[in-house]
Amino acid sequence: MAATKTYLTGIQTSGMPHLGNYYGAIQPALAAAESNDSLYFLADYHSLNSVKEPARLREDVRSVAATWLACGLDPERTVLYRQSSIPEVFELATVLSSVTAKGLMNRAHAYKAARDRNEAAGSSELDAGINMGLFNYPILMAADILVMETDVVPVGRDQAQHIEYTADIARAFNHLYGEHYSFPVPEGAYPADGDGEGSILPGVDGRKMSKSYDNHIPLFMPENKLKKLIRRIPTDSTPVEEPKDPDTSVPFQLLARFGQAEHVGGVRKRLEAGGMGWGELKNELFEVVNERFGAMRERYDSLVAPGSELDDILQAGAQRARRRAGATLAKVRRAVGID
Amino acid sequence: MAATKTYLTGIQTSGMPHLGNYYGAIQPALAAAESNDSLYFLADYHSLNSVKEPARLREDVRSVAATWLACGLDPERTVLYRQSSIPEVFELATVLSSVTAKGLMNRAHAYKAARDRNEAAGSSELDAGINMGLFNYPILMAADILVMETDVVPVGRDQAQHIEYTADIARAFNHLYGEHYSFPVPEGAYPADGDGEGSILPGVDGRKMSKSYDNHIPLFMPENKLKKLIRRIPTDSTPVEEPKDPDTSVPFQLLARFGQAEHVGGVRKRLEAGGMGWGELKNELFEVVNERFGAMRERYDSLVAPGSELDDILQAGAQRARRRAGATLAKVRRAVGID
Repeated sequence: MAATKTYLTGIQTSGMPHLGNYYGAIQPALAAAESNDSLYFLADYHSLNSVKEPARLREDVRSVAATWLACGLDPERTVLYRQSSIPEVFELATVLSSVTAKGLMNRAHAYKAARDRNEAAGSSELDAGINMGLFNYPILMAADILVMETDVVPVGRDQAQHIEYTADIARAFNHLYGEHYSFPVPEGAYPADGDGEGSILPGVDGRKMSKSYDNHIPLFMPENKLKKLIRRIPTDSTPVEEPKDPDTSVPFQLLARFGQAEHVGGVRKRLEAGGMGWGELKNELFEVVNERFGAMRERYDSLVAPGSELDDILQAGAQRARRRAGATLAKVRRAVGID
Repeated sequence: MAATKTYLTGIQTSGMPHLGNYYGAIQPALAAAESNDSLYFLADYHSLNSVKEPARLREDVRSVAATWLACGLDPERTVLYRQSSIPEVFELATVLSSVTAKGLMNRAHAYKAARDRNEAAGSSELDAGINMGLFNYPILMAADILVMETDVVPVGRDQAQHIEYTADIARAFNHLYGEHYSFPVPEGAYPADGDGEGSILPGVDGRKMSKSYDNHIPLFMPENKLKKLIRRIPTDSTPVEEPKDPDTSVPFQLLARFGQAEHVGGVRKRLEAGGMGWGELKNELFEVVNERFGAMRERYDSLVAPGSELDDILQAGAQRARRRAGATLAKVRRAVGID
């Protein structure tokens, strides 16, 4: 019997995921959980680097946790917890700092991108506006991963450097203290067909669906808002009766992703033959999305409401996660001589 | 009635203090504790940046804790704890990172000094050999201080920048979150007549007593070793019977610091009159030091022994310190929206 590998997925808590996230990140992550020892954490302290409004941070975390649960994350079979519930993470980050070369951090993509933006803006201080949370991000992420003795981290390609950094930091620790304790050196698991954020799915403007383009469809909108949003997807002025090319139509591409094959085939034929207008196509898309995500949305609405079982779920997850984190940290402390 | 101020003293755990530390740091700190709400912590995680041998780190912490207790630190009236016993410190450091400008860290003295050494050595990578523990040091120190809602930090002048940084970081937090919670902005209390490391006391070579000059007399040496060390203090070859200048004599300066005024006056007269040799002076110095620190050394020996009450003392201190730290962190978490 092969040993079960530990998978850890970090969940950004920056507002409600959209359809692209569902397809590119949530669904694959939940599928991977089927056959593994899987943990999921809500990276709330990472959000603190950019979100300085307490009420928004609070809402975001609740909304994202409810989203993943509504999408099918099983808190019994997997472990779901908030990063901020695991004090061991922050202590481990302190230990890891002592074995992490500053030069490594200087070369981190996110930090370099922030400097490049300052340079492009003609700023004389390249570190202007950059906080230490951003600069230390790779160390905190390494602590998130190593404290769970993670083997595999399913992430988008854009996160590959963070996994390499975590492996580097683990090796640096193991080199110094391996006689007493060694971290498993984790590896990334990258989606074969996307970057983990949902690049396959087009946004309402035809570009990759992304919050930064503001072209996204949030997963769980109230029905009437979803309908409005879908009806506002830009289309050309081809008259109803004329034939249309489904493959260049954003509503059709979205329909094709979420609808049943038979239904999608029927719509394709009607578009190509002429006689189906964009308005009707959008109505079909709304029905499909609403049908596909309606039950999840109900579950989401119930979980996100104040006083729901969400708090209990997160608390139970935190307890399980802390047992693991505490065991790791105790070994690390002994290894470095802090015990 | 004026409100009692909270004083916090960080204790470096890098090996046993010497006579200069006693006079320049330990004694003033203990005197300040008389009239204040005083906390002392052993900065063991700070040591981890330079000490990579677990056995040595463990011994150093034990030795330094035993030293302060032997010197008169009262663990009932004050709070003595290990930094590593307070997980709230590391979590708070994570929060503070998110409000700390990287530019501030770039200008920190200790980091700049390390870069200057690399530059002087002709290194092409100015950050070579610098770890993130050193770079993050001011943030961790700010967390040490702010988690206890400290008002005053008694430190040497060389630490003044760290206190200013802590105040800057506290203000940055207060500016963003002051509506919900504000840290007291701490200030440093600097010794009037020294740098906190004991610059007034000469080492055996006449320069300031310092471990970095290797001219120091450890506080608690076994009697025979102390005798040998004092007998090896360099002196000139003036014959016994000739008059000598006490004010240029290292053994006399040390004697003057630790002896009773009447006795010191007598020795001064005998040196100036001639007839007292350096060997006899050194014997007098040994007797005075041995007398002054003998009872403390016994207490030190008993505390540093395995299975002594030291562990209980540190555990009790940790409990008291955690209550304070936990209360602060709860307020901070609520303020930033992590709750």
